[in-house]
Amino acid sequence: MTTQGSDAPRREIGVGLIGLGVVGGGVARALLERRDYFARRVGAPLIVRRAAVRDLSKPRAVELGPGVLTTNVDDVINDPAVDIVVEVIGGEEPAGSYIRQALQAGKHVVTANKELMAKSGPELLAEAHSRGLDIMFEASVGGGIPLIAPFRRDLLANRITSIRAIINGTTNYILTDLARSGAVGHALRSQGIEPPPGGGFAQALAEAQRLGYAEPDPTNDVEGYDAAYKLAVMATLGFRNRVRPDQIDTTGITKLDARDFQYAQELGYVIKLLAIAQVIDDGIVARVGPAVIPQSEPLAKVDGVYNAVQIEGDLTGTVLFQGRGAGADPTSSAVVADLLDLSHAIVLGGRERKYWGPEEDMPVLPLERLETRYYVRVIVSDQPGVLAQIAQTLGNHDVSIAAVSQKEADASAQTAELVVMTHRAREGAMRAALRDIEALPVVSGVSSFLRVEG
Amino acid sequence: MTTQGSDAPRREIGVGLIGLGVVGGGVARALLERRDYFARRVGAPLIVRRAAVRDLSKPRAVELGPGVLTTNVDDVINDPAVDIVVEVIGGEEPAGSYIRQALQAGKHVVTANKELMAKSGPELLAEAHSRGLDIMFEASVGGGIPLIAPFRRDLLANRITSIRAIINGTTNYILTDLARSGAVGHALRSQGIEPPPGGGFAQALAEAQRLGYAEPDPTNDVEGYDAAYKLAVMATLGFRNRVRPDQIDTTGITKLDARDFQYAQELGYVIKLLAIAQVIDDGIVARVGPAVIPQSEPLAKVDGVYNAVQIEGDLTGTVLFQGRGAGADPTSSAVVADLLDLSHAIVLGGRERKYWGPEEDMPVLPLERLETRYYVRVIVSDQPGVLAQIAQTLGNHDVSIAAVSQKEADASAQTAELVVMTHRAREGAMRAALRDIEALPVVSGVSSFLRVEG
Repeated sequence: MTTQGSDAPRREIGVGLIGLGVVGGGVARALLERRDYFARRVGAPLIVRRAAVRDLSKPRAVELGPGVLTTNVDDVINDPAVDIVVEVIGGEEPAGSYIRQALQAGKHVVTANKELMAKSGPELLAEAHSRGLDIMFEASVGGGIPLIAPFRRDLLANRITSIRAIINGTTNYILTDLARSGAVGHALRSQGIEPPPGGGFAQALAEAQRLGYAEPDPTNDVEGYDAAYKLAVMATLGFRNRVRPDQIDTTGITKLDARDFQYAQELGYVIKLLAIAQVIDDGIVARVGPAVIPQSEPLAKVDGVYNAVQIEGDLTGTVLFQGRGAGADPTSSAVVADLLDLSHAIVLGGRERKYWGPEEDMPVLPLERLETRYYVRVIVSDQPGVLAQIAQTLGNHDVSIAAVSQKEADASAQTAELVVMTHRAREGAMRAALRDIEALPVVSGVSSFLRVEG
Repeated sequence: MTTQGSDAPRREIGVGLIGLGVVGGGVARALLERRDYFARRVGAPLIVRRAAVRDLSKPRAVELGPGVLTTNVDDVINDPAVDIVVEVIGGEEPAGSYIRQALQAGKHVVTANKELMAKSGPELLAEAHSRGLDIMFEASVGGGIPLIAPFRRDLLANRITSIRAIINGTTNYILTDLARSGAVGHALRSQGIEPPPGGGFAQALAEAQRLGYAEPDPTNDVEGYDAAYKLAVMATLGFRNRVRPDQIDTTGITKLDARDFQYAQELGYVIKLLAIAQVIDDGIVARVGPAVIPQSEPLAKVDGVYNAVQIEGDLTGTVLFQGRGAGADPTSSAVVADLLDLSHAIVLGGRERKYWGPEEDMPVLPLERLETRYYVRVIVSDQPGVLAQIAQTLGNHDVSIAAVSQKEADASAQTAELVVMTHRAREGAMRAALRDIEALPVVSGVSSFLRVEG
């Protein structure tokens, strides 16, 4: 039981911010500009009492009054006027320690921290619950798109069986750009013109960085780690079963080739970085990686910096949520929604908190257990009988070919390119088959290996 | 203050059902089959204590135990073991009276009733609030798609500026069918073959009825009333400003012609029944009607019985929600989500309820105030100078033409067909221009007048 249970009417809800950058600043501004409206909806005004920043002298877009700013996080956490601590600095540490200290000091927490919630969410939620406190984290996934609340509330009657998401705006922007170049290449080739080499990933990344859609160090985004964090958060909540980020088979987009975009397009597909978690017979399979999906799929039409999440529930069927997955305003919107929800609960005087940690105990299975279709591009010697050898090798592993096409041959190197789409097969079998294919004397290399999802 | 505020721990939450058809039965089944899981999440089991039905002898898919079924609604409302009354019979009366009686008896209410919430929602919410009770109505709009909760919670930090929705599955199914015939007609015409006449709306409706997607009496759906109810509910909640269904300019789909689907397609557009409410300078404009939208718009890709709602918030930007808008399972999912939410609040012992009624006082403006683009199909005499007269008439009302094309002439009647797309214009000016155009001696009639939205 916390002091929030007291019967005295609440005069205000004190908010403490750790971080006052674009998101923290946006939250402070919204609370200030919409104070009266929020107070009417929640039953008490939300006042920013303390805000911890690194540099007191830095100019701020929002005026918080004297004595609010501090460089000492302890001032925020230990201020008796602070009911809710908002952590918007990101990263595992020191954010995790700050949140634990806030809980120990009896404060509720709102965080936008996907890495921390992905790695330590269940422990933090248990710690909060044992103290009668809440941790809210809507802003950790999908910016302004409601994604945490649907799992907690709207879809609660359902057994969630799969989550399929485009959940990283940076990579989706880059892939959209590459698809467009692929379309150009396709158009040129259809007129018998060989498109110029180069361009591709590096150029699309540079463009995304120029527009502020990619960080100077884009590793977390382009290697898929950011998407894996978000998938871990959603899957753990949706399946009520812990899914750790290091249990998610994660591949980035850096090795994609412009040719694959052209070939996918010719076949009626697009390439997207998908984060997918699904319940199969006796466990969960989860992966992040570039995937080939039919152009008719709703996710195929999500372009640029947009995010979208498709959730399959046994009662609702497929529900799709789409919107801007990042940015100061959408993320602030999610943080403020959590703040209002929590503030209202405090005003109501409820004495208990729901426990949102996992309660199932299904294993996260190795990806070898997955069964799906595959797209493979192989560089082979330009000679008869090669296709037969590849088909034979796949067949040895029970993988059958759905479609195959031979692409341009390189006369000087005496090689040709084969694009193979398989029928459904076990990932384990497929990987074994690819090892054997790479060992064939007629094969120079497997250039691409992508899952066909959907 | 209600008895729910008592400090004694809750042993169970009693549920009373008014109606045990497909939705009520689905709710009862979910509560029974998932009782333990729900009890863990909510803190107490939800037990169906009474269920009012018309016919006790009718076989039921779910076994509720002896003494639960009754033909007397009072037995449900007045049972002291019932905490929450679930109304799933639909229609304005007697559902409205039952809900008022339930509130007077101190029961919380969950309803799936769009017509009632559209017409009397604010009064019912005020009545509930004054008694420290809640009315939840997620299932009234969009089946299993979370739409009420996002307005209440997730988007609460935002000023909502527009709601654009495909919110009636029956009409969307019919329009998808008609668009397909339009595509066939287009393909035939492009090969110089005149498509066969007939088909169109009646045939598509019959097919929808055969598949159970349209009611035997489809009036509410095909005339747009159902969509107007749902738009009224969403707009009232989203804009925090009352929007009554009779303030929504409503047109159905019965007068659409197969030609318009072909012509729209040729121009790169599709036709959808859109429900749109938006805040303009000093008020709200709201309409339901068939609209011409670019094929690239997300809503253009929502086909068949699917629903989708696009909400524009000043912080989140555009957020899209999509899924199955009707059906027993999705609707049950929404009712159960409300039940769980409410049950948890009861278990927590919170003593106050949020007020969700309107608090703004913007007028709902006549549609003449709308400014958008228009698609008009006019049958004219097949003679020179006709286009000039039409352009001149539009110009007299400050409406300018963006594109015009002359379609097939009917040699025997000596008429031709003109399709005009305008630039943005005031609806009032456009309507006045159309009246003048209809009065021109060279004009046989205005066959279609559709808004271009997006």
